[in-house]
Amino acid sequence: MAAPRTIRLVVEYDGTNLCGWQRQDNGPTVQGHLEAALADLLGKHTAVAGASRTDAGVHALGQVARFVTDGTIPPRGIMRALNARLPPGIAIAEASEVEGDWHPRFSATGKHYRYMLWLRPERSAHWHNRTWHRALPVDVERMQEAAPHFVGVHDFAAFRAVGCVAKTTRRIMSEVSVTRDARTPDLCVIDVCGNAFLRNMVRIMVGTLVDIGEHRFAPSELPEIIAAGDRQRAGQTAPAQGLTLVSVRYDGVRGEHIGATQASAETV
Amino acid sequence: MAAPRTIRLVVEYDGTNLCGWQRQDNGPTVQGHLEAALADLLGKHTAVAGASRTDAGVHALGQVARFVTDGTIPPRGIMRALNARLPPGIAIAEASEVEGDWHPRFSATGKHYRYMLWLRPERSAHWHNRTWHRALPVDVERMQEAAPHFVGVHDFAAFRAVGCVAKTTRRIMSEVSVTRDARTPDLCVIDVCGNAFLRNMVRIMVGTLVDIGEHRFAPSELPEIIAAGDRQRAGQTAPAQGLTLVSVRYDGVRGEHIGATQASAETV
Repeated sequence: MAAPRTIRLVVEYDGTNLCGWQRQDNGPTVQGHLEAALADLLGKHTAVAGASRTDAGVHALGQVARFVTDGTIPPRGIMRALNARLPPGIAIAEASEVEGDWHPRFSATGKHYRYMLWLRPERSAHWHNRTWHRALPVDVERMQEAAPHFVGVHDFAAFRAVGCVAKTTRRIMSEVSVTRDARTPDLCVIDVCGNAFLRNMVRIMVGTLVDIGEHRFAPSELPEIIAAGDRQRAGQTAPAQGLTLVSVRYDGVRGEHIGATQASAETV
Repeated sequence: MAAPRTIRLVVEYDGTNLCGWQRQDNGPTVQGHLEAALADLLGKHTAVAGASRTDAGVHALGQVARFVTDGTIPPRGIMRALNARLPPGIAIAEASEVEGDWHPRFSATGKHYRYMLWLRPERSAHWHNRTWHRALPVDVERMQEAAPHFVGVHDFAAFRAVGCVAKTTRRIMSEVSVTRDARTPDLCVIDVCGNAFLRNMVRIMVGTLVDIGEHRFAPSELPEIIAAGDRQRAGQTAPAQGLTLVSVRYDGVRGEHIGATQASAETV
C-alpha cells in the first residue's frame, strides 16, 4: 500500500441549493457531496476538511479543502473523477499534492470575500441568487466613504453573530472596497480581504455599510460603532445569498501556490 | 372605457428553464408567462409581441416587448404588478407608454447579442447555464484576429440555420469583439452588434470563431467562408445557453429611449 498523500483542492460552488459547507444529516452540503464523491472514487470513507465553514446559500469561487488518501491516482485524475461525480453546482478548479502538515483552515493567513448588492427598484432575473436586492435608493458614495474605516487592525466584537465562540475578536482588514460593476452598474460589489473573520462578520459589515448607504448611520459614525464593540450598535446582518468566498491565502507555509484561479489581482 | 394605450416593456430572463420566447403548448416560455401575468392583472387575454424570438435556453438582459391595453394602470404600476406575478427568472426592467404604431420587432434598427465561452479544462460551478464550455485550449488571439472580418456589410447566407426563411441575407455588423472578462479570465465574451440577424446567425458566427480558435480554420479563411455563402463551409452552431440578447436599438422612430439599462456603452 502506498504512503498516505495529502491532497489540496480548490472548490467552487453555487450555494443556492446547498445547506452550506458542513456535512449534516438533513440537507445537501458541499462537504457531504465531496465525501460522497470521494467514497465512490476511492472505495472508502475519506474525511474532507475545508478552510471556511460557509453558511447555507453562500457561494465560493475558491474554497480550499484537503483530504488524505493512500490511493495512487494523481491529483489531476482525482480532480477529473470528482468533477464527473459532483453535481453541476459544485466543481473542483485545482488539485495538488501538499505536505502532510498543511491544513486549509489552520494554515490559512487570509481570506477574500465578496458581497454583491442589486441596486435598482426592480428585481433582477439574473442575479437574484447572488445578490441582496435593495429596492430603495442606496447611496454608494456614502458606503465608499465609510468602507476605509474598516481597514487596519480593529476589535470586531460588534461585528459577530450571537453565538460566535472565537476567543479573540481582533482582526486585520487589508481591503474593504465598494465598487459598481463596469458592465452592470446596478450591481454593487463589496470586496473584503482580511487575515481572519468572526462568524457572520462580513455579512454584518455589509449590513452596516448598507445602513450607511440608506442614511440610517453617517459614514463618520463607523469608527465609533467599531470602537463601542457592541453588536447592538452595528447594522443589520446582510443575507447569505449575496456572499462569495473568493479565495484563501496561504503565505510562507508549505502547500503554497494556493488560492483562487480567479480574481487573483484582488486576492488579499 | 379609456382609449387603448401601447405599452413597451424591457424584459430580462434567465432562459435556462424556459422553452424560449415564443408561446407554445408544451413548455414554459417568456411570452406565455408574460401573457398569463397580464391576464391575471388586466382580467383578459392580452397578446404580447417581442423584438426577438429567442430559442430555448437563450437569455436576455434587454428583450423588448409591447402590448395594447385599454386599462388605466400607469406603466410603473404595470411593471411592479408584473414583477410580482412573474417567476424569479423573468423580470421587467422598464415600462413606458409609446405611440400605437411602434412595434418592438418591425421598428427595431439594431440588436446587441453577447455569447460567453468557458475556457478551461474544468467545468464551472457558476457559469454552466450561461456559457459554452470548451475544455481543450482555444486560442483567443486567433478569434480576435478573425472577428473583424465579420464587421461591415456582408451576405451572411453561410451563417443561417437550415429552415431560415428570411428573404434577404445581407446584414450589417457594426461590432464583433472577443474579450476575456477582467475579473474572470476563463470567461471569454463575444459581443455582436448588427442591424438584424438571420436564424442562428450569432451562434454559427461564434461556432466558426471557436473553430478558428481551435485551429480548424485559419483567421484568414473567414472572408472566403463568408463570400462562399455556403452553410457547409462555415463552422458549427454554438449551443443556445451561451447566448444573451443584451439590447435592442430603435433609432429615429417613435417609442425611442428604448434599449437595455445595462451595457449601454456596448450597445449597437
